[in-house]
Amino acid sequence: MSRAHNFSAGPAALPEAVLERARAELLEWGGERASVMEVSHRGKAFEAMAARAEADLRSLLAVPDDHAVLFLQGGATQHFAQVPMNIAAGGRADYVLTGHWGVRAMAEAARVCTVRVAASSEAGGFRDLPDRIDLDPGAAYVHVTPNETIHGVEFHAPPDTGGVPLVADMSSTLLSRPVDVARYGVIYACAQKNIGPSGLVVLLVRRDLLARAPDSLPDIFRYDRHAASGSLLNTPPTFAWYLAGLVFQWLHEQGGLAAMAARNQAKSARLYAAIDGSGGFYRNQVAASARSWMNVPFQLHDAALDPLFLAGAEAAGLIGLKGHRAVGGMRASLYNAMPMAGVEALVDYMAGFQRDHG
Amino acid sequence: MSRAHNFSAGPAALPEAVLERARAELLEWGGERASVMEVSHRGKAFEAMAARAEADLRSLLAVPDDHAVLFLQGGATQHFAQVPMNIAAGGRADYVLTGHWGVRAMAEAARVCTVRVAASSEAGGFRDLPDRIDLDPGAAYVHVTPNETIHGVEFHAPPDTGGVPLVADMSSTLLSRPVDVARYGVIYACAQKNIGPSGLVVLLVRRDLLARAPDSLPDIFRYDRHAASGSLLNTPPTFAWYLAGLVFQWLHEQGGLAAMAARNQAKSARLYAAIDGSGGFYRNQVAASARSWMNVPFQLHDAALDPLFLAGAEAAGLIGLKGHRAVGGMRASLYNAMPMAGVEALVDYMAGFQRDHG
Repeated sequence: MSRAHNFSAGPAALPEAVLERARAELLEWGGERASVMEVSHRGKAFEAMAARAEADLRSLLAVPDDHAVLFLQGGATQHFAQVPMNIAAGGRADYVLTGHWGVRAMAEAARVCTVRVAASSEAGGFRDLPDRIDLDPGAAYVHVTPNETIHGVEFHAPPDTGGVPLVADMSSTLLSRPVDVARYGVIYACAQKNIGPSGLVVLLVRRDLLARAPDSLPDIFRYDRHAASGSLLNTPPTFAWYLAGLVFQWLHEQGGLAAMAARNQAKSARLYAAIDGSGGFYRNQVAASARSWMNVPFQLHDAALDPLFLAGAEAAGLIGLKGHRAVGGMRASLYNAMPMAGVEALVDYMAGFQRDHG
Repeated sequence: MSRAHNFSAGPAALPEAVLERARAELLEWGGERASVMEVSHRGKAFEAMAARAEADLRSLLAVPDDHAVLFLQGGATQHFAQVPMNIAAGGRADYVLTGHWGVRAMAEAARVCTVRVAASSEAGGFRDLPDRIDLDPGAAYVHVTPNETIHGVEFHAPPDTGGVPLVADMSSTLLSRPVDVARYGVIYACAQKNIGPSGLVVLLVRRDLLARAPDSLPDIFRYDRHAASGSLLNTPPTFAWYLAGLVFQWLHEQGGLAAMAARNQAKSARLYAAIDGSGGFYRNQVAASARSWMNVPFQLHDAALDPLFLAGAEAAGLIGLKGHRAVGGMRASLYNAMPMAGVEALVDYMAGFQRDHG
């Protein structure tokens, strides 16, 4: 047995070098004579690890000093609610809907503040970006989902929201390329795509927005309290934080986010070219300008072949390819940890399958 | 270098056999050709693991069918707020205060509902249990903290709250002994003492209480939604859940919770006997009937010796003994993963230190 090429949409593959290091020090970490899981988050060793992780993340993303970096829990879904609890209580928020996750984010926020659809591509089945965005200048924020993992649709440039803070759920893109963090009021991302294991959320917030939290909010939900405590308001998910720190080190070793962007663009271009060049045997229905680098959904011309395709892929060491039921067919997620060799193996398998069944 | 005896109050030591198994399968779990961290929480392998973990936990604790078992995030601190959000919105709640954590729990709840102190031992410095509890029969629940990790004070039997649901933060005791779950409306516990790594919360809730969640509560905070989805409402902390499952298996192998209770009682009795038999060189100030099995705070007769004691302990392979600043001195946490051999090593070290410095 050996490790497969894992195209899972998340929890997704981690860099093998990171897993190997974690394995080597799983029972004795640093000089601690204990696992990183077994030491106090208030101890010097953990605090040094946490400080390095934040510094590495800040340098990868060139985070400006006026943004705080938080390491939190709850998944992106919790922050669908917690962002408006912190920065829009009693106010209004605008949502740009380009797929499943933006719709979910708006539904949670609707329990907390007044929400409004500023733009949506739902009528076209979420296969393209909206033509125009109708902004409310009095909104507390505008929420976007730069990449939609199910529909495979991506904003390659953030919309201009004027003076209204832009809030982005970057769960599936953060660390896959450089980002101009200064353009965003809040960026949040669950870890289990490009950052680390599930159970950790990375959230960047412009410090002036921290003052918006209402007095009625319990401390544990307040971003200002987490910022003031260095994300140590309560016991954090220490192992997930440590693994994310190893991923940040690995990204620096790979050449940083510009290098990852080039790699990720090349990986997705290789796969889209194979799909588009298959004469209709495979197809991706997303408008070319809105195609995701991270998640490539594709359908076989005959859905009856799906089980055969998936079984053959597994036998060829290619796993996690089953598409989401909302769009059917296949989905190949090409996050940072997926090497070009994995994409080549998939493309080769697809060509062979087409020869056998075309 | 080798692993030390780790007396950390949490994140605490895990059973070495559990860590060894996790290490062995860290890169390839089961037949998955991927780490357990890298597979979908909606896949068959993860679902089977999760189902076994719940079944093992239910059998360990003899959880009645009318209690749901949830695997959640956020630490106990989040549930200080989330419990009243679910079962006391707009109502009143009673708090029994026997230490730091009960006070913290009440402060968070005060943002959500009307709170009242039903009993407190704060006037005596949290060194004993309250004599009597003054219950409000109209309260939505009565909250207790059966074990206080900082003050080392423990309720060895839950108070009778009549028809008012009893809510217990069992972060530091759950799985350390049998519990009559039927007596509780809600039991919640962070994992990082007796259950697994930080980032996971286990919560048992009587199903009739689930109906109390108000419509205004975002789904992600609703226990009823988590219960209906098998704790897969969103991506759970998969690695922490898996490790907790390994701990449950280990507990069954150890003979279950009655065996753990006997062991834990014997471990703490051995240490208290050493403290009490030191002629005042060491002392524990908690009333004998309220002494914790899990966390044993103790002071040296001369606090100036503390740094010497701690340095010698580390050199002897005994770590995590520094006490919380609220009470000073030392604290030895004796959770399930601490073997009697660790307690014997500590007692031997204490005797030697007293000989050298008494």
